[in-house]
Amino acid sequence: MYLIGIDVGGMSIKGGAVALNGEIIFKTSIPTAEKYTADYSISEDIKKVIDLVIEGAKISLCDVKGIGIGQPGSIDSKKGIIRYSNNIALEKVPVVDELKKYFDIPIYINNDANCAALGELVFGAGKGYNDIVFVTLGTGVGTGFIIDGKLFEGRECAGAEGGHMVINTSQDAPMCNCGQRGCWETYASATALMRQTKEAMEKYPDSIMHKLAQEEGKVSGKTAFGAAKLGDKAGQEVVNNYMSYITCGLVNLVNVFCPEAILIGGGISNEKEYLTVPISKAVNEGRFGAKFNPTIEVKTASLKNDAGILGAAALAL
Amino acid sequence: MYLIGIDVGGMSIKGGAVALNGEIIFKTSIPTAEKYTADYSISEDIKKVIDLVIEGAKISLCDVKGIGIGQPGSIDSKKGIIRYSNNIALEKVPVVDELKKYFDIPIYINNDANCAALGELVFGAGKGYNDIVFVTLGTGVGTGFIIDGKLFEGRECAGAEGGHMVINTSQDAPMCNCGQRGCWETYASATALMRQTKEAMEKYPDSIMHKLAQEEGKVSGKTAFGAAKLGDKAGQEVVNNYMSYITCGLVNLVNVFCPEAILIGGGISNEKEYLTVPISKAVNEGRFGAKFNPTIEVKTASLKNDAGILGAAALAL
Repeated sequence: MYLIGIDVGGMSIKGGAVALNGEIIFKTSIPTAEKYTADYSISEDIKKVIDLVIEGAKISLCDVKGIGIGQPGSIDSKKGIIRYSNNIALEKVPVVDELKKYFDIPIYINNDANCAALGELVFGAGKGYNDIVFVTLGTGVGTGFIIDGKLFEGRECAGAEGGHMVINTSQDAPMCNCGQRGCWETYASATALMRQTKEAMEKYPDSIMHKLAQEEGKVSGKTAFGAAKLGDKAGQEVVNNYMSYITCGLVNLVNVFCPEAILIGGGISNEKEYLTVPISKAVNEGRFGAKFNPTIEVKTASLKNDAGILGAAALAL
Repeated sequence: MYLIGIDVGGMSIKGGAVALNGEIIFKTSIPTAEKYTADYSISEDIKKVIDLVIEGAKISLCDVKGIGIGQPGSIDSKKGIIRYSNNIALEKVPVVDELKKYFDIPIYINNDANCAALGELVFGAGKGYNDIVFVTLGTGVGTGFIIDGKLFEGRECAGAEGGHMVINTSQDAPMCNCGQRGCWETYASATALMRQTKEAMEKYPDSIMHKLAQEEGKVSGKTAFGAAKLGDKAGQEVVNNYMSYITCGLVNLVNVFCPEAILIGGGISNEKEYLTVPISKAVNEGRFGAKFNPTIEVKTASLKNDAGILGAAALAL
């Protein structure tokens, strides 16, 4: 038996056939349309990808245990509906019902960060844990929570948005896309790191960050980390502040969930131990009742490029 | 059948016999000792209160379904151990095992805010809800979370400390007892409100807050609210800021849990609709995905003075 995982993104809709052990036997993708309408539902494109996956993997629908779809935005996973998606403009799309017309097998949809958390639990760095706080540091900050081995989505699947915890109530805190100021996302995303890097570069014209950015052709999430590793004071300041922001949100979530492990995904997680070692120390020292409460492991997520497909596939397990 | 609820506080240990419908048929209390030691466990005093309750209520142990104990601090409710308590200096006290020697019936212990949340669910304003965020605004900020009708305590009962979410990462944020700066507790507790009131009084010598504080003999959690209701600009500023801090933490918790209801307890909740109406509006407008996610009811807790006994008793249900 196989699982089909569909990873919907702003640029492409990826799909893969996944063996029950997490091996991807075939994967493909098509571009995401510029606009979906009442007459042209995103379900049509998802169907296309599923067909391509079944064909390319040389399997039949009878071999498929279920289909899982990971989708950015607010998803009602119980009803199988995209409530709202920001980057691909979608509102109230009953994806699961639309796909059920074509595929008479179990079909699931969930928020992409929730899928990623589940994927790590089932196939990745979260194996063996029952309680996980997963966070992905990318364009935004996505969170997924595993409690007692199960995905926790909040009532009506409308919670688990840890990226929109406010960690700075000040009126001059950065504005977030969600309408609030000072969300964790505005401090701890890769986007935020780039903003912080640029601000430091303006302040420190002699920083090696300028050279690194020039070599890469842009300021990226790697600029400050690269400079810090070369001993650049300004780069170290940026990285230390950035890690303290990551830590702040993680401590908040630890004080609520007390997970066994925190898994960090997204582009920034490529910094590996350079990121996780100081953050682990800071989280375990900063959490409430550090002296008498259980310690928390901090690791990077392990699924990387295939996280989207595998996380979506994990929904169908 | 009856439940016995024990409410351990810094000043007194209260106990009550509670009918299954939540009616307290008898209650009593003894002073909390100044110091407990290896030879003089707090369990001895709790036993005393239980004996007094059984005697006073004219019931026998056979009539008691179970005993519940609400205790401030970090409690391992599964093992029945006080891990650590700050205001009454206690560390690693196996209260349930110690009491089992005297009472051969089910005995439970939990953190006081968790008990309060459970008490509201079973006997109070939380009746009929399955998903509740409970917050008590007192000396500190305590939180209790009900998910799917059950108390959520985090792994090893070491979570649910929402009062120690940092809502201001700045280095100049107020210091919290927990060792962090900028915890929600340092902005939204009654203690914090009094600090904010005093600061405003220094800034506005003409504010009516001075008169109200003089009449009451002190600055209290009521000073600014009283002034605001009289149209005092400075009082309104204090109250508006204070409510925005409460809202900030509540939105953070709503974005994680998406409860059906938020219940606000503690002394500040006496402000009733003056507090809940603007906070309800602000929470529902500020939460992530306000336009498409379910709304949240915001109410005050209803158990008031007996919340401690009833919450503890609810543990034994």
